[in-house]
Amino acid sequence: MNQTVGQALEYVKKVLSEAEMYRQAGRALMFDQETICPKKAMERQGEVAAFMDNRAFALVKDPAFEKAALTLYEGREELGEYDRVMAELLHRQYLREKNITPEKDLEYSLVFNKAFVDWNCAREASDFSLFAGSLEKVEEVQKEMISLREHEEGEEPLQLYDIMLDDYERGIRMEDLDPIFEKCRTRLGDLLEKIRKSPKKIRTDFLSRPVTDAQQKELGEYLLGLMHFDFERGAMTTTEHPFTEGIGPDDVRVTTHYYPDNFASSMYSVIHEGGHALFDMNQPRENFESFIADGKTLGMHESVSRFYENRIGRSREFIHYIYPELSRIMPQVTEGVTPDEMYEALNEVKPSLIRTEADEFTYTFHIIIRYELEKEIASGTLKIADAPQRWRDKYTQILGVTPETDRDGILQDVHWSSGFGYFPTYAIGNFYNAMYYNRMKQEIDISAALSKGDLTPVNSWMKEHVFAKADRLSPAQWITDITGRKLTADDFLDYLEEKYSAIYEL
Amino acid sequence: MNQTVGQALEYVKKVLSEAEMYRQAGRALMFDQETICPKKAMERQGEVAAFMDNRAFALVKDPAFEKAALTLYEGREELGEYDRVMAELLHRQYLREKNITPEKDLEYSLVFNKAFVDWNCAREASDFSLFAGSLEKVEEVQKEMISLREHEEGEEPLQLYDIMLDDYERGIRMEDLDPIFEKCRTRLGDLLEKIRKSPKKIRTDFLSRPVTDAQQKELGEYLLGLMHFDFERGAMTTTEHPFTEGIGPDDVRVTTHYYPDNFASSMYSVIHEGGHALFDMNQPRENFESFIADGKTLGMHESVSRFYENRIGRSREFIHYIYPELSRIMPQVTEGVTPDEMYEALNEVKPSLIRTEADEFTYTFHIIIRYELEKEIASGTLKIADAPQRWRDKYTQILGVTPETDRDGILQDVHWSSGFGYFPTYAIGNFYNAMYYNRMKQEIDISAALSKGDLTPVNSWMKEHVFAKADRLSPAQWITDITGRKLTADDFLDYLEEKYSAIYEL
Repeated sequence: MNQTVGQALEYVKKVLSEAEMYRQAGRALMFDQETICPKKAMERQGEVAAFMDNRAFALVKDPAFEKAALTLYEGREELGEYDRVMAELLHRQYLREKNITPEKDLEYSLVFNKAFVDWNCAREASDFSLFAGSLEKVEEVQKEMISLREHEEGEEPLQLYDIMLDDYERGIRMEDLDPIFEKCRTRLGDLLEKIRKSPKKIRTDFLSRPVTDAQQKELGEYLLGLMHFDFERGAMTTTEHPFTEGIGPDDVRVTTHYYPDNFASSMYSVIHEGGHALFDMNQPRENFESFIADGKTLGMHESVSRFYENRIGRSREFIHYIYPELSRIMPQVTEGVTPDEMYEALNEVKPSLIRTEADEFTYTFHIIIRYELEKEIASGTLKIADAPQRWRDKYTQILGVTPETDRDGILQDVHWSSGFGYFPTYAIGNFYNAMYYNRMKQEIDISAALSKGDLTPVNSWMKEHVFAKADRLSPAQWITDITGRKLTADDFLDYLEEKYSAIYEL
Repeated sequence: MNQTVGQALEYVKKVLSEAEMYRQAGRALMFDQETICPKKAMERQGEVAAFMDNRAFALVKDPAFEKAALTLYEGREELGEYDRVMAELLHRQYLREKNITPEKDLEYSLVFNKAFVDWNCAREASDFSLFAGSLEKVEEVQKEMISLREHEEGEEPLQLYDIMLDDYERGIRMEDLDPIFEKCRTRLGDLLEKIRKSPKKIRTDFLSRPVTDAQQKELGEYLLGLMHFDFERGAMTTTEHPFTEGIGPDDVRVTTHYYPDNFASSMYSVIHEGGHALFDMNQPRENFESFIADGKTLGMHESVSRFYENRIGRSREFIHYIYPELSRIMPQVTEGVTPDEMYEALNEVKPSLIRTEADEFTYTFHIIIRYELEKEIASGTLKIADAPQRWRDKYTQILGVTPETDRDGILQDVHWSSGFGYFPTYAIGNFYNAMYYNRMKQEIDISAALSKGDLTPVNSWMKEHVFAKADRLSPAQWITDITGRKLTADDFLDYLEEKYSAIYEL
């Protein structure tokens, strides 16, 4: 490595390590805001978090830093693998933020913070009008931020919604998703019709048997333990909307919620978030040393969380394995219920209103609805004020159910308070994991491992093939690296067809 | 106000308001570190918090700020009451920190952070040797920080332990405390002898009846509600060692712990911390606008928390009032128990090992033991390495009980990980609140209010007389302002004598 590049590397890492102090504080403050922070302090807490992020932003906007980062980028071929990725990420970020001053950045952050606080109040009151103003502001700011970006030479101009998609899943375009979602709608729609007509009766009465918070907590801890979640490097607590926050290399937190009459909701939230956590906990240490731990996309992340939630957690083998422990912790739930009845109940297909509570089968429809709405909003054909009605119409049309309140409709998800484009990553994640599940089973007897409740081989495979390079490859490179194939929904659709044909005896 | 002072005021507030962002982040991070932060991330989390405090420190060490603060101090007679106090606090702080660079300050913070982490591990392992090295370092740093201070002209030189005391309770000296504690030892010692010989049998078997976390949580929330704790501006969670953290003007958090066989421990932790919280929640808004909310001393704070814990929470009227609700929440605890039996059990006098679990009567002895040890450490006659044995000897000699482990001995309290001099404030707090209780009862029928479970008159009196000026007066001025008298333990000792003579039928 030549001396200039070496010095630039040292300087860049010194500054990034200071920026990381602020970012870690920001993440911890956001976690606090969403978990324990009292209502009247939420906005202030978010402002402090935004201030922290802004300090980090100001550090990388410093001309001396920008110069060093450019030197690194130009000399990137001399760098090691991790540092090269860092140099590329910094350059990408530089182009995006070149025309945004720290003052502007703070202003934007405060808009998103306010939107989060307003969404929270609106949701509680089930009144979209309390959120509409903030959401309009979010839309405006997101567009403004995009319009201020610089581009690489020779980069093709994109449509607005493609840019939004790209921000959450690098390289994904509407032209990829449109045919995939169309196929899903057709194949899943046909299958749903058959399921509806199936004489098979699935018993679900026991799912709503009363459970205590303490029982649900114990079950959650048992499940995380089974997944090899490291409690010395992580924690579990509660929030209305479950999420995972990687605060630092040894600090990954998951949240869940406890409903008194729905143990499965908390159970699958824990497994889902536990999957995110395993991804964060098992990434290479070098990611932190080269500050690229944010390189993994949401699609990658959701593929992992939904892999554990559905492919592992909703499998017959897994449910049979945990059944005795479930009975010990919640005897009232399993009384008079066979393991197979439990398996079927936890896989019942039933169109419903709430995405996070949806079964694995109808889940994709919830994403398609949001994808279509986001496209309309981005193209300007749908006004924010008209979105709640459009939401209701879409649900009625696509899933045959109509939300009676905003809380059960457009206000159910937090995501839009930080912008549009996130939702498709959930479906993409499902497509990815179905692809790598098929690859994994060529090497591992997954079914045998699950029957013994031993996740070691699965976790090791995930660590080696799925986690290791996620921060260094684009999503397209990554899925090809794992499976040798390009993104397709076929594996996912085949899997659903096989599984649900069996359950519903089609 | 002349223009220079006016400009200085504006500038100082602008900088302090930025510093407050960092300080708030630091407090929230410390709260996080002590509550949910996973074990392996604790040290890092503390480092981030220390970094935040250090950013605030660097802002007030800036020459331009120091100059403006000096202008304010010199022109303080032109300022309003709150801003004048701010100018004085800043000047006091300036003298203390004049010779400490931001680099030094960060180094010190990291020593305290490491000490906290080590104390935690040592306590868990019940092995003082894991903490000894850090504690020696704390002692060294505390002495070094003191040696670097500048003093006001004409200020009398103080002995080391007097300075440590002064840091926690401004104006308090060994020459004040020695005779007071001597009197306590004599009067309480004699009384304890009588209690020991009393034929009165107090039934306590039901105190260790099994309770669930959920029951204790419900009781805690009920009690905080009764105290008018504002849940929209505060929160409750759990830690091994209960504490209160005022994170911001609308964000005051209390913690408690749940033991499966000791509901009273959590109950009184909640009331105690709830008292601290009421103090923070009900201070004048101007305190925040003038950045003087830290002006209140620990003695003042402990007077309030122990007022609610003991004078309210352990009174016969209060226990009778809450009895039906206690029975509803924990029927297994109150079964076959009369309210009077409950009152007596919650006031049983019994020498024990753990300060925070001690009864109101023997509590003072725990403080005297720590006071004597701290004096010996400060004067150099006791080495840290010999402290655990000295601790055991003192407990044997003064309370007649001997800890068998470090965990039940010298490792029980977190305080020394941030320096020596804190403990006496607990006893001083008791002396203060006994004095103002006597003043309060001249104006309010406290007994009648408690019998109705209505804390409104008590809280209002506290707000007006105890809370309102706490940040603007020295402890000596403050207690005289409330009671017209100087600090004395007489009210406290008379109260104990009367109360416990009745209970033990002496």
